[in-house]
Amino acid sequence: MTFPAGLLRQRSVPGGRGVCTCSTAFTVPDREDIIMTETTSPALRTALAYHQAWTSHDLDKAMSYIADDIVCDAPAGRLEGADAYRGFMGPFVQILTGSELIAAFGDGQTALIMYDTETVPVKSAPAAECITVSGGKITYSRFVFDRAPFDAARRAAG
Amino acid sequence: MTFPAGLLRQRSVPGGRGVCTCSTAFTVPDREDIIMTETTSPALRTALAYHQAWTSHDLDKAMSYIADDIVCDAPAGRLEGADAYRGFMGPFVQILTGSELIAAFGDGQTALIMYDTETVPVKSAPAAECITVSGGKITYSRFVFDRAPFDAARRAAG
Repeated sequence: MTFPAGLLRQRSVPGGRGVCTCSTAFTVPDREDIIMTETTSPALRTALAYHQAWTSHDLDKAMSYIADDIVCDAPAGRLEGADAYRGFMGPFVQILTGSELIAAFGDGQTALIMYDTETVPVKSAPAAECITVSGGKITYSRFVFDRAPFDAARRAAG
Repeated sequence: MTFPAGLLRQRSVPGGRGVCTCSTAFTVPDREDIIMTETTSPALRTALAYHQAWTSHDLDKAMSYIADDIVCDAPAGRLEGADAYRGFMGPFVQILTGSELIAAFGDGQTALIMYDTETVPVKSAPAAECITVSGGKITYSRFVFDRAPFDAARRAAG
């Protein structure tokens, strides 16, 4: 198994191989505001603040955590820049009816979270995001979710 | 945002709310064997040993980390028991041509990993797994990946 150079920006600790870092983990906390106060991981703090904003339908606040030059590798392809990212998240936030955090971990500059969402067309649409944070802003996001049930709902709606 | 009681089995620290734990994180390490030696998270150790086994096409070794009564919530629905899980992973391992670990975090009993896979029909098929580990075995897995490109490849193949 090899790790291409392009992924190195996601390394949690500059230099070194297989470096073990002490990070902060929260799995299924009861209130995200408590997490954000207590976590010592800057990247996780940003990830959860961003997550709480968009799951509260506050897209403007959510976008305040997104770097202008964000790069997001999503299932449908790469999005570049905050405008493209907002164009991707905006419609999703509009159909969002609920969410549950499944697990969230982070270290200095990387956070990895998994959550479930409930949307108008799809009752359970879990997703995972691996983000890179710099200066309190999300500069890179790898986004994984299953498009199949959304495709099916679109087809069913004609 | 609320967290149903059913998810509490994934809590990283028994009892307490928003508890901060010191865990081990590895993002894009160069060699997983180094990680497995160094990580202090039992759940992450199991997650990575499992991951290394199946990405090396060693399904028997991979299954040695799977509890007999595993429950796996995958995109197509819930799988219950090791036989069902093997029936799910076996065909996937057969079409696997490469993999890259993107990020991996864990604490006492939960691990969260994201990786990309290269398969015969789909060149980039990233996935994320949130697993619960007990006694060195994976007892629960929440599995997220995009089925859409696999569906498209099947349709294209007629």
